[in-house]
Amino acid sequence: MSKKLVYSFGSGKAEGDASMKDLLGGKGANLAEMSRLGIPVPAGFTITTEVCTHFMKNRGDYPESLENQVHTALSKTEKTMGQKFGDPDNPLLLSVRSGARISMPGMMETVLNIGLTQKTLTGLIAKSGSERFVYDAYRRLIMMYSDVVMEKSAGINPGEGKGIRNLLELEMQKLKDSRGVKDDTELDAADLKKLVKIFKTKVEKVLKKPFPDDAHEQLWGAISAVFKSWNGKRAISYRRIESIPDEWGTAVNIQAMVFGNLGENSATGVAFTRDPATGENRFYGEFLVNAQGEDVVAGTRTPQAINRVSKNETSKHLPTLEDLMPDLYNQLEKIRIKLEKHYHDMQDIEFTIQDGNLFMLQTRTGKRNGAAAVRIAVEMCQEGLINQNEAIKRVQPHQLDELLHPMLDPKSEKAAEILAKGLPAGPGGGVGQIVFSADDAETWKSKGHSVILVRDETSPEDIHGMRVAEAILTAKGGMTSHAALVARGWGKCCIVGCDTLDINYSKKTLDVKGKTLKEGDWISLNGTRGIVYSNKISLLPEDPEKNSYYKKLMAWADKKRRLKIRTNADNPKDSRQARQFGAEGIGLCRTEHMFFGPDRISAMREMILADNEEGRKRALKKLLPFQRKDFMGIFKAMDGLPVTIRTLDPPLHEFLPNDTASQKEIAESTGVSYQAIKTKVQLLHELNPMLGHRGCRLGITYPEITAMQARAIMEAACRSAKKGIKVYPEIMIPLVGTKEELENQRLLVEKTIEEVQEKEGIKVKTLIGTMIEIPRAALTADEIATVSDFFSFGTNDLTQMTFGYSRDDAGKFLPEYLEKKILPDDPFQTLDQTGVGQLVSMGIEKGRKARSSLKVGICGEHGGDPQSVVFCHKVKMDYVSCSPFRVPIARFAAAHAALDEQ
Amino acid sequence: MSKKLVYSFGSGKAEGDASMKDLLGGKGANLAEMSRLGIPVPAGFTITTEVCTHFMKNRGDYPESLENQVHTALSKTEKTMGQKFGDPDNPLLLSVRSGARISMPGMMETVLNIGLTQKTLTGLIAKSGSERFVYDAYRRLIMMYSDVVMEKSAGINPGEGKGIRNLLELEMQKLKDSRGVKDDTELDAADLKKLVKIFKTKVEKVLKKPFPDDAHEQLWGAISAVFKSWNGKRAISYRRIESIPDEWGTAVNIQAMVFGNLGENSATGVAFTRDPATGENRFYGEFLVNAQGEDVVAGTRTPQAINRVSKNETSKHLPTLEDLMPDLYNQLEKIRIKLEKHYHDMQDIEFTIQDGNLFMLQTRTGKRNGAAAVRIAVEMCQEGLINQNEAIKRVQPHQLDELLHPMLDPKSEKAAEILAKGLPAGPGGGVGQIVFSADDAETWKSKGHSVILVRDETSPEDIHGMRVAEAILTAKGGMTSHAALVARGWGKCCIVGCDTLDINYSKKTLDVKGKTLKEGDWISLNGTRGIVYSNKISLLPEDPEKNSYYKKLMAWADKKRRLKIRTNADNPKDSRQARQFGAEGIGLCRTEHMFFGPDRISAMREMILADNEEGRKRALKKLLPFQRKDFMGIFKAMDGLPVTIRTLDPPLHEFLPNDTASQKEIAESTGVSYQAIKTKVQLLHELNPMLGHRGCRLGITYPEITAMQARAIMEAACRSAKKGIKVYPEIMIPLVGTKEELENQRLLVEKTIEEVQEKEGIKVKTLIGTMIEIPRAALTADEIATVSDFFSFGTNDLTQMTFGYSRDDAGKFLPEYLEKKILPDDPFQTLDQTGVGQLVSMGIEKGRKARSSLKVGICGEHGGDPQSVVFCHKVKMDYVSCSPFRVPIARFAAAHAALDEQ
Repeated sequence: MSKKLVYSFGSGKAEGDASMKDLLGGKGANLAEMSRLGIPVPAGFTITTEVCTHFMKNRGDYPESLENQVHTALSKTEKTMGQKFGDPDNPLLLSVRSGARISMPGMMETVLNIGLTQKTLTGLIAKSGSERFVYDAYRRLIMMYSDVVMEKSAGINPGEGKGIRNLLELEMQKLKDSRGVKDDTELDAADLKKLVKIFKTKVEKVLKKPFPDDAHEQLWGAISAVFKSWNGKRAISYRRIESIPDEWGTAVNIQAMVFGNLGENSATGVAFTRDPATGENRFYGEFLVNAQGEDVVAGTRTPQAINRVSKNETSKHLPTLEDLMPDLYNQLEKIRIKLEKHYHDMQDIEFTIQDGNLFMLQTRTGKRNGAAAVRIAVEMCQEGLINQNEAIKRVQPHQLDELLHPMLDPKSEKAAEILAKGLPAGPGGGVGQIVFSADDAETWKSKGHSVILVRDETSPEDIHGMRVAEAILTAKGGMTSHAALVARGWGKCCIVGCDTLDINYSKKTLDVKGKTLKEGDWISLNGTRGIVYSNKISLLPEDPEKNSYYKKLMAWADKKRRLKIRTNADNPKDSRQARQFGAEGIGLCRTEHMFFGPDRISAMREMILADNEEGRKRALKKLLPFQRKDFMGIFKAMDGLPVTIRTLDPPLHEFLPNDTASQKEIAESTGVSYQAIKTKVQLLHELNPMLGHRGCRLGITYPEITAMQARAIMEAACRSAKKGIKVYPEIMIPLVGTKEELENQRLLVEKTIEEVQEKEGIKVKTLIGTMIEIPRAALTADEIATVSDFFSFGTNDLTQMTFGYSRDDAGKFLPEYLEKKILPDDPFQTLDQTGVGQLVSMGIEKGRKARSSLKVGICGEHGGDPQSVVFCHKVKMDYVSCSPFRVPIARFAAAHAALDEQ
Repeated sequence: MSKKLVYSFGSGKAEGDASMKDLLGGKGANLAEMSRLGIPVPAGFTITTEVCTHFMKNRGDYPESLENQVHTALSKTEKTMGQKFGDPDNPLLLSVRSGARISMPGMMETVLNIGLTQKTLTGLIAKSGSERFVYDAYRRLIMMYSDVVMEKSAGINPGEGKGIRNLLELEMQKLKDSRGVKDDTELDAADLKKLVKIFKTKVEKVLKKPFPDDAHEQLWGAISAVFKSWNGKRAISYRRIESIPDEWGTAVNIQAMVFGNLGENSATGVAFTRDPATGENRFYGEFLVNAQGEDVVAGTRTPQAINRVSKNETSKHLPTLEDLMPDLYNQLEKIRIKLEKHYHDMQDIEFTIQDGNLFMLQTRTGKRNGAAAVRIAVEMCQEGLINQNEAIKRVQPHQLDELLHPMLDPKSEKAAEILAKGLPAGPGGGVGQIVFSADDAETWKSKGHSVILVRDETSPEDIHGMRVAEAILTAKGGMTSHAALVARGWGKCCIVGCDTLDINYSKKTLDVKGKTLKEGDWISLNGTRGIVYSNKISLLPEDPEKNSYYKKLMAWADKKRRLKIRTNADNPKDSRQARQFGAEGIGLCRTEHMFFGPDRISAMREMILADNEEGRKRALKKLLPFQRKDFMGIFKAMDGLPVTIRTLDPPLHEFLPNDTASQKEIAESTGVSYQAIKTKVQLLHELNPMLGHRGCRLGITYPEITAMQARAIMEAACRSAKKGIKVYPEIMIPLVGTKEELENQRLLVEKTIEEVQEKEGIKVKTLIGTMIEIPRAALTADEIATVSDFFSFGTNDLTQMTFGYSRDDAGKFLPEYLEKKILPDDPFQTLDQTGVGQLVSMGIEKGRKARSSLKVGICGEHGGDPQSVVFCHKVKMDYVSCSPFRVPIARFAAAHAALDEQ
């Protein structure tokens, strides 16, 4: 027996089922499945993807037995539908559609109304009772077929605007003009009959071939055209982008046509089994009476709601399907229940009512937004449709983002004018009036305005303005620029590197694409996507704690996960915020951020400008109380939880300004000569600061800095402990590449700890560990672990060094790398498991071998990226740490990871 | 029986031997060995290092049986010497010396003349016949003993300049002043007798204890002091620096005193068994009649040559030992032969003639310079003393450096004034007159002057001046600065980063440490050590090819090695030079160096400034013939050998100047507006250029660059092949971190190769491979190898990224890291086997697993570092590549590696 190449479905039976997507494509498999479920679908059959593969390999040849198998399947369809393909009296019309394993929307071809010929016309007119309907179907067939089959699939490329479809549309327009009508629907049967004639003449003239008047010739032409469209230009480039293998091929679905436009007893519609915007468990959809599917989408007629709850502003006064055809609505409602029971998920369905008969054309998993996803998952679990594990897996971690930040109202956003695009540095939406300086931001804000701070770049001096702004927008800088880092830490909306902006600070104007905006003008930012709009868009506020579905789902998720989730926070406010989001400690407290306050930066600069250790110690003494106070606030906020504090990391030149004016200002305030400051700045200048004198390299050449910081941490810890706060300090040395570096700093820290504890008269258990952020540290983790209580993978720097990419400069080639698929993802967003991940696994393995009690975590940006969290789980980290607003996402991703493992 | 703690030697016998260095220390073991050989050494015994360990563990206690064993050994010594310790009539005097496993020169204590007391004085006077000699010995004993034993080892710290030794010296000075004499030798017996009395009083007064007048008390005091000196401050810090374990301990050597100052029949000297300066096989040494060992070193008297050939300017008129004591000289000559026969190496010996009796005090392997080392090794092999393998291993690879570059005459250098110190960027010596610009260099040179080009930094515009200069000196820049790279490539003497230089270009002066030098002043540079001298020092020219010993040794070595040695060369001249040095191909031809010529840089800049691909292609077309010509020259020079050519590596901004004047100049010459150039420079600016848009990242974003280079290489290869030259081109893509990058470039190169071969009508087998210089490349070498014919490890960049050190900036902390022993070596000089080496091994292993035919080499600076070459051998590379002048060193190191393996 020859191989089965064709699978029939219809009348409550089917040869295929939903599991056969590889062979039948998604659409074909689901049609078969619905048919098996007894749901009414127009009968038909699917030609398998294997035929496509054969067709491509053999330059358009079909397997030998195909014709016979199609013939047999067609007979079955005819029997089921009680019609006959090509029959003059009772003709069956067919649709021919593509359907790959994965949906490739609009990338391949479709031909409808196959089977209409001079011979079958009259039979169909008699049957349908509408000459106009039939000629309308016929002219549609000619347009589609001549385009798809006779022109495109024949490899004819007539040039822009000269395609046969365009030419026919011009003819139709000509006819409408001569008849003085505007809409296609105003053409009557006689007009369309005439049009069909005009079309046929035109087709033959242009394509040098008559339009085929044989039903079977039409069918095979359409099948071949659909197969060929698999290798169309659009489809190929789509597959490249989506990494879909060429050899998958497409199936072809041949199905009896049903018409929603056979009169007032016919209709067509789309629906969701639950509300995709809110997730509420209610049937939600739209339909049109006497219409074809494309009319619902086209927007020429206002769709009606299928029921009362689906009504909106435009449809509120129109009758619903429930009103008009209550029986059919009930039938549809039953199908809805059946589909959800069967698929255990919310479905997106298409249906057609032909002369009082309901047909389902498609069902697939419905798209939904984050909030809806959460509610549907929780409610389906409560309804017993899915279990808790499934409920958790139904929601993608990144979908929670929508629940954590105010968002631009998607509907208004769709209609808004895009002003510019930049890098999405801080998620959520931000709406406000433009200001160009931090001081102006404060002034406007104090008067009750909402402001957006727009700068070329931001610097530590702008912090007060950034705080009060609704959002931050910069023309320069990358994802690690000052603005991006600060905004992410605060969970504030921010777009950076928006390089089409031309800011004039003195005029307080902003030129962009020939448009000039001025101070006080409203703009809106979508920080999740990096888009700036030139008007005021309403915001949808969100407080996840008020969302009971979110809380329930997170509670379920927390029970599943093994990973602890900590946060990156540098001050008490962020620490409290993160704790509310569920953080179980601090994984990274960057002490340098504490030096940028105006009262602190001057002492910091005094330290840097000092000529000798004595001078540095004097300046550091001034910084100590500030640091101690910050640490006490943080310990209090994290009472009972571990707090990892990193010693000074950035190169010293980051604390001195580069421009003459600021240098002179410092000269005045510090009493150090301008020349000396200038010289110091030159001396500190580095060609590659990323690889320069920073991290523990500073602590080793200036041990007094580490000593001061260790003292501030321990004094804060001891004094907090005496107040009854449970403190678990972990002191972390950055940028270690050799065991000796950590040993050097560890000895220094231990000595300081002992001194402070002696003086304070209390002991506080303190861990001393290191960042693993230099490739060499991972490679020699076995040595380093002998002097380290914990490892925290700094995957930002580790990625920079492992790839040899400067995050600040990679913008020059990374976008092209992603486009050309040289990289699958931006390695700074999603951890590169193949390369960087090897170092991480190696580091953990070697580290734990040398010290079994080693605590291991991650504190790079990747700690908040779901894919990367899954990796951290796999390599058996103890915790991940991320910015406060990513904590829920990380918690949820950790649960996914644990479930994936099962 | 209790453990043996004491080992005797003397009179042709010994209980120990040379193999027992761990137990007896180096000195003790060699004394025993000489004694066994029948060489006359003063009899004595060694207390083992185990006693030291015990002594340290037990706070100064000795093992129980030590006293008895010392007693027994002392009896033997007395018997051998025919004298008795503490005996009034025939007293034996002893020396007590430290002696660790490894020589720690001057770090521990020595006490001489032990056993001199009021009781033994007279006997010794009678025996020696010289009252003056005995009192002189006595006052030396008191000085040494009170200092070492009574003060230091008692833990007394009297403060700077207040030590007992100083006080006694003041007393001696007082006496000399009162006697109106200058030298110690002018004091007569009566003076010294008086001095002894003064000394004893002073010692008792200051140290509150009388000077011990009992021989045995003196002996045990001295032994204890020597043991204690193992834990002296100096010794401890020396051990830290040299990584000598504390638990090794020192042995103590107690030996009969012999005196070279007993009159005209006595003498003392030092000698080498061969000439340590030339390696010639002739006895070479100096001596003094009637003197003690320290007198030969002190330089107060002019030493005499032991024989005619040892004579120099100062000793040429003085009689030799051969003249004065022919029998003893003959005896010494016989010992010389015996020692060489026994130790199979050139020895550095100390001897004393006491009243006509020859005693050997020490023998050890003699230090020698490079040329001598080579000659000695070859001649000893020819004499049958050692085999070829041993001959090779006798010469350290780095010693060959001295044979490859002209050197400053070491004798003149010793006397010269050091002007400044910098980084040793190019080895050898350079002597010339200062010029401050490349143009001046050319002008002066054309007038017959030798010049040294002195600049803050050099740039590609200075190339013509750098070429003609004898040496290059810069105030700024590190070991990878432009000057350093160029100089190393040329084997030219160069010192960079000499930051005490203050250059005034307009005045044409150079200020350094308050001194001002002007154009035309002579300076001399030692590029091997990084020292600048403020005068003209003579040069010792070297041409290794004229050195038959060198040639012979290299020929032997070449037979042993497995590694191939290639060179890094960018032009035909260097290629020829390298081939003369024995290079077996080119491992790295950096094409960017070819773009810096004045005729090329403008086309290069045109390419960079072009707005679109068309413009770039136009400019590249101009560069193509230059590149092709260079390649043809290189292929010719390397006829029959492989040539690896790397496509463009540096970021484009390196080809555009930063200063306004030069930018304006370019504007004029290219016709591009100054503003456009300025904007381009700003656009190309990078925060971390090391990690920026360079290497294959350029070739991917600008495929036309790679295409032009591949075309130039292939056209050159095809046309050379047609001329009968055997070409083996290997095209190398730099900075690859992902397989996809290499795949992208490989496809492009392959396409170009096919096109060119088609056009030229000839096929040339070409390999396409990559640098492994990014950690990720090593980590994913298995993937990359699937599209790579060869790997070349770029360990410069690999070290930068694995450590996270920018080589240009690391100067801010590396010196301190080396000093604090946080790093054992500069990882840019010697490959870090622990960290970077792991990536290298991993890369090779993974790469070969994926492609067994994978060719593997190294082309970083490490390819010329002997230790690193050994590593490359161990990890089974096929070749190393280094700069031309390092080729012989690499060849030799490769032989060492192969021999080490056996």
